[in-house]
Amino acid sequence: MDHRLIEAVLAGQRRAVAKAISLVEDNGAEAQAVLAALFPHTGRAHIVGVTGPPGSGKSTLVNALALHFRRMDPPRTVGIVAVDPTSPFSGGAILGDRIRMRDLSGDRGIFIRSMASRGNLGGLAWATADAVKVLDAAGYDLVIVETVGAGQAEVDIARTAHTTVVVEVPGLGDDIQAIKAGILEIADVFAVNKADQEGADHAVMALQMMLDLSGGGGQRAVMHHGRLMAAATAPEGEEGGWQPPICKTVATRRAGIAGLAEAILAHRAYLEETGGLALRERERAAAELETIIQQESLRRVLARTGPDRLAALIGRIVRRELDPYAAAQELLFG
Amino acid sequence: MDHRLIEAVLAGQRRAVAKAISLVEDNGAEAQAVLAALFPHTGRAHIVGVTGPPGSGKSTLVNALALHFRRMDPPRTVGIVAVDPTSPFSGGAILGDRIRMRDLSGDRGIFIRSMASRGNLGGLAWATADAVKVLDAAGYDLVIVETVGAGQAEVDIARTAHTTVVVEVPGLGDDIQAIKAGILEIADVFAVNKADQEGADHAVMALQMMLDLSGGGGQRAVMHHGRLMAAATAPEGEEGGWQPPICKTVATRRAGIAGLAEAILAHRAYLEETGGLALRERERAAAELETIIQQESLRRVLARTGPDRLAALIGRIVRRELDPYAAAQELLFG
Repeated sequence: MDHRLIEAVLAGQRRAVAKAISLVEDNGAEAQAVLAALFPHTGRAHIVGVTGPPGSGKSTLVNALALHFRRMDPPRTVGIVAVDPTSPFSGGAILGDRIRMRDLSGDRGIFIRSMASRGNLGGLAWATADAVKVLDAAGYDLVIVETVGAGQAEVDIARTAHTTVVVEVPGLGDDIQAIKAGILEIADVFAVNKADQEGADHAVMALQMMLDLSGGGGQRAVMHHGRLMAAATAPEGEEGGWQPPICKTVATRRAGIAGLAEAILAHRAYLEETGGLALRERERAAAELETIIQQESLRRVLARTGPDRLAALIGRIVRRELDPYAAAQELLFG
Repeated sequence: MDHRLIEAVLAGQRRAVAKAISLVEDNGAEAQAVLAALFPHTGRAHIVGVTGPPGSGKSTLVNALALHFRRMDPPRTVGIVAVDPTSPFSGGAILGDRIRMRDLSGDRGIFIRSMASRGNLGGLAWATADAVKVLDAAGYDLVIVETVGAGQAEVDIARTAHTTVVVEVPGLGDDIQAIKAGILEIADVFAVNKADQEGADHAVMALQMMLDLSGGGGQRAVMHHGRLMAAATAPEGEEGGWQPPICKTVATRRAGIAGLAEAILAHRAYLEETGGLALRERERAAAELETIIQQESLRRVLARTGPDRLAALIGRIVRRELDPYAAAQELLFG
C-alpha cells in the first residue's frame, strides 16, 4: 500500500482524495488496505443524504447548499458524492460533473465526485459508502450524498446518512400519496423545490398533513430491517421528538437555501443531544457489515466454483431440473 | 409441506395462489419447499416488467393492458405483481389493491398482488421473483411486474422480465437526458403515457433521438453485470435486431393500449425466434442464484454468530477500532 497516498488524503490533498476514491470505486486489491488505513480517521463528517425524483432539481439544490455552507460563519468544507444509479453504463455521471464544475470550481473547500452504478446496487451502495469514508477522512465537514430516488435508493441513502433530505416538487402525479407513506420514514428534512411553481403550497400542505396523520413527526424508522441489524441490536432509543421541517426552496435562484442549511444543522444538533447519532452510527455499521458479508461470501463461492460448473448449474435451472434454492445449496455446501 | 396447496396452485385456484404468495413473501420454512415443488411447472408465462417514474400512470396503464389482454383473441390470463418499494412500512400497497379491484374485480382471469418492501431490496427482489414463479406455475399466460422506477429498481426489473416496458410522460425535468442513457439499455418497449398532454411529441422525438444516437436500437444490454453471471456465462448472442418501439398511450382513456400490447407480444415473438429468450432465462437464473447465495450466506453467518458478539463487533466498528472489512472477515472465518 502507498503510505504517501494515505498521508496525502489525511492532509486533504485533492488529487490524493480523487485517487483514493478511484481506488475504492475499482474495488481492487489496494482498496481494502486503503480503506482500513483511513477508517480510524473517519467519523467526524456529518453525512447528508439528498434524494428525490428525477427532475426535482436535486443537483442544483445540492450545489446551492454547498455554496451556502462555504459562506457560513464558520465556513464548512463540503464533499459531494453524486450517485447516478440510473445511468449504469453511460457517461452521464461525467457530464454531470462538468456541469457542476462551472458553479463550484475554484473553491478548494468543495470536492465533487460522481459515481455511476455498474449494474448492481450492492456494488454501488458499497462504493458510495467507501467514497464517503475517503471524504470523511480527508476532513470535509459535510459530505453530501445525492441520489435520484424513488424506492430502494432512498432507503439506502437513509441508511448511509445522518440526515436525509427528501426533495419534492409541486404537482407530482396521483401516486404521490402512496409514495409519501414510505418517504415519511426516511425524511429528516423536506425540501419542496421549485417552490415558485404552481402547487407549491399544496405540496407543503400535503406533506404537513401526512406528517400530522403519522403522529406529528418522529416517525423516522430505525433502519434495523436488515437481518444483521435486527439480530445484533434492539432499538435503543426512539427519536420521538424530531419534527421534520418542510423547507420551500428555489434552487436555481438560491432562495430558501439558508433555511434548508439551518434545518440540516439543527437536525445534527438534535441527534447529538438525544443520542440518536450513536444509534444511526450503529445502523450504518450494521448495514455496511451486512453488505460486505454478502459480497464477500459470493466472491468466495465464485472463487471456488469454476465457470463451467456455474454455467452447468444455470443450465439446469433454466431447464427446470433444479430449483435455484437447491442450486445455491449445492454451491454453498458442495 | 401441504401437497393440496401445490395441487390447488397448479390447478390455478385463486385462494391457493394468494396463500402461496403469502408463504413465499413471509419467506418462512415452508416457502422453499413450496417453491421447489412449483418450480418444475414454471417457465411458460411471459414476464413483462413495467417501470417508470412516480406519477407516470403506470398502475392505470397496467390495468388497461391487463383488460386488453383479457379481451384479445385468444384471451390471455394475466397475473400482476405490483411492487411498491417506496412504501416499506405502510399500507400503501393494500390501498393500491383496493383501487385496482374496482376495475378488475370479477374477472377470474386476472390476479393482482401488491408487494411492499420490508426495508431491503434483496428481500423484495427475491419475494417478487418468487411471486412471479407462483403465478407462472398457476398458469397465467402473462405475468406483469410493475415497479416505481428510477435507478436500481429498473435494472432489477429488467433482470426479472422477458420484456421491459419503460413508461415515460411528457415534460419531465432537465435530468431526463442523463436518465435516458441508462433506460435505453433496459427498455424493450417505450410507452409515452399521458400522450394527450403538451410535450408528448417532443418526448417521443427525444426518445427516438436517443435510440438513433445509440445506434438504432438493439442496445439492450445483456444483464450479466452480476459477478456470478459474468463468471458463468459469456454473452452467447446479441439481440442486435430489435428496435424498441415507442407507443403513445393515454391509459385513463384506454387509448393506445392495443398498440402497446402488440409491441409486447411482438417482442416475445422476436425473443423466441432469435434465441434471445434462452439468453434472458440464463440471466434471470444467474441473477436469482446470486441473490440466494448472498442471502443464504448472511443467514448462515448470523446463525452461527450470537447477537451479543454481533453487537460487540458493531460497537467496535462505530468506535473505529475495527474496520468493517476486517469485521466481516472475522465473522466469515472466526
